[in-house]
Amino acid sequence: MTKESYFTEDGSAEAVNARMGDNIDPRLAEVMGSLVRHLHAFAKDIELKPEEWDLAIDFLTRTGQICSPERQEFILLSDTLGFSMLVDAINNRRPSGATENTVFGPFHVADAPIRQMGDTICLDGKGEPCLYEGRVVDKDGSPIEGATVDVWSDNADGYYDVQQPDVQPKFNNRGRFITGADGAYSFVGIKPVSYPIPDDGPVGQMLAALDRHPNRPAHLHFLVTAPGYEKIVTHIFDGEDEWLSSDSVFGVKESLIAPFEPASGDTNWRAPFDFVMVKA
Amino acid sequence: MTKESYFTEDGSAEAVNARMGDNIDPRLAEVMGSLVRHLHAFAKDIELKPEEWDLAIDFLTRTGQICSPERQEFILLSDTLGFSMLVDAINNRRPSGATENTVFGPFHVADAPIRQMGDTICLDGKGEPCLYEGRVVDKDGSPIEGATVDVWSDNADGYYDVQQPDVQPKFNNRGRFITGADGAYSFVGIKPVSYPIPDDGPVGQMLAALDRHPNRPAHLHFLVTAPGYEKIVTHIFDGEDEWLSSDSVFGVKESLIAPFEPASGDTNWRAPFDFVMVKA
Ligand SMILES: [Fe+2]
Ligand SMILES: [Fe+2]
Repeated sequence: MTKESYFTEDGSAEAVNARMGDNIDPRLAEVMGSLVRHLHAFAKDIELKPEEWDLAIDFLTRTGQICSPERQEFILLSDTLGFSMLVDAINNRRPSGATENTVFGPFHVADAPIRQMGDTICLDGKGEPCLYEGRVVDKDGSPIEGATVDVWSDNADGYYDVQQPDVQPKFNNRGRFITGADGAYSFVGIKPVSYPIPDDGPVGQMLAALDRHPNRPAHLHFLVTAPGYEKIVTHIFDGEDEWLSSDSVFGVKESLIAPFEPASGDTNWRAPFDFVMVKA
Repeated sequence: MTKESYFTEDGSAEAVNARMGDNIDPRLAEVMGSLVRHLHAFAKDIELKPEEWDLAIDFLTRTGQICSPERQEFILLSDTLGFSMLVDAINNRRPSGATENTVFGPFHVADAPIRQMGDTICLDGKGEPCLYEGRVVDKDGSPIEGATVDVWSDNADGYYDVQQPDVQPKFNNRGRFITGADGAYSFVGIKPVSYPIPDDGPVGQMLAALDRHPNRPAHLHFLVTAPGYEKIVTHIFDGEDEWLSSDSVFGVKESLIAPFEPASGDTNWRAPFDFVMVKA
């Protein structure tokens, strides 16, 4: 195939990729070459019709147009097609026993307050109190000192604080905890509740057309970091949630299901979970 | 694979596709199933990195946001990735000898004036006059009576009239011609000139990163229709154009290169071309 080749149906991807010039980043050439091959193979496999192409152009356009500083519909599209989870999985392969990653989600804030062990992160008094506790350890089970456990969850109504900027107090259901020499962490939050991803846009229409629901099973988000270790971006899930096996963004992994045990102390529930980190 | 399966890297596409419900259009299930398989295979083949995913989300978002009633950047993206040509090719396979299709482009208008054979379509007097003539025939070479030859081209500056709505006269370099019993058509236009696709947006940035130019080789657009025959959407190209082998939207097919012959009559050039139609 030379750069002078005209387009043919059989050689369509090769004709497009042969057009790339010499003055191009090698990684970009690799990525775009593969993208073109797979896109063309897709159209050929299902013999895409012109009216289906029209629909796709319209869908992508509306997906871009609904994006705003408060809404990222293309991330939602990536999430609901399992693409975000796949990219996360490819880039965070870990040995068995290490805590697995899952999607980051759009609701993290970098500057949540640093709190003391045992503190409560639930500031509005709503929801069922739950004691979260465990240790941050390495693969050998040795405690990791100075690890930051950054946690965020929705409130009892299914909203993150950043989704309700007018509702006080700020940093509701968020906090950062720094481990001591024992690697232990503990805090009181709420037993999280399931919530739907925003489904009033093109992605919601897609889910409806695919006969899929928009719900995520109840979960708590964690970002665990420690010097010299790979960061962990993950959730823990409530194993009893009705949407556990049908998370709209495919975030559930079996190892991330925490026991939510009925408790008899100050909290209704107790969810023990250890984070096992891998050296960077 | 059951609908209860959690996400794994290996089974990522299967996990997503298993989520489709029962109440779904079978063709949509086929198209989306294939799309998910190919998108996931793409990410796996090149081990897409998180920062590349970020770039893709940003690119798609900007592509959607620049779209307006006057500009369709996703069509431009499809065109420049050869995807539009591929969909056209898949849906317009014709026997050897029949006139081939190429991309429709964004500049057709439905209500161009019906003109008499031999008329000129160039109303602004700019450009090099060229006599276009030939016949509309079936596969056996028999003339087709009552065929509509709808033609449009850019002006001598490389713009279609609809790109310059303030420039008069209207319908410059456009016209429709209806064949008589001999199937013949003829009109005077200009020898078309090459022009760049809009390259001041995300697609232009992509072309630059791929070390590709945005130019289309000089061409004249045709939409040929006749009762009982498949419509032909095509161009004829000037074989001497410097961009002929590197059309930014991959529209060139060898059979669509017309001879532009120097002429000594009222026009500088003569471009003979027959349209061979296939029964619908
Ligand atoms: Fe969440
Ligand atoms: Fe054109």
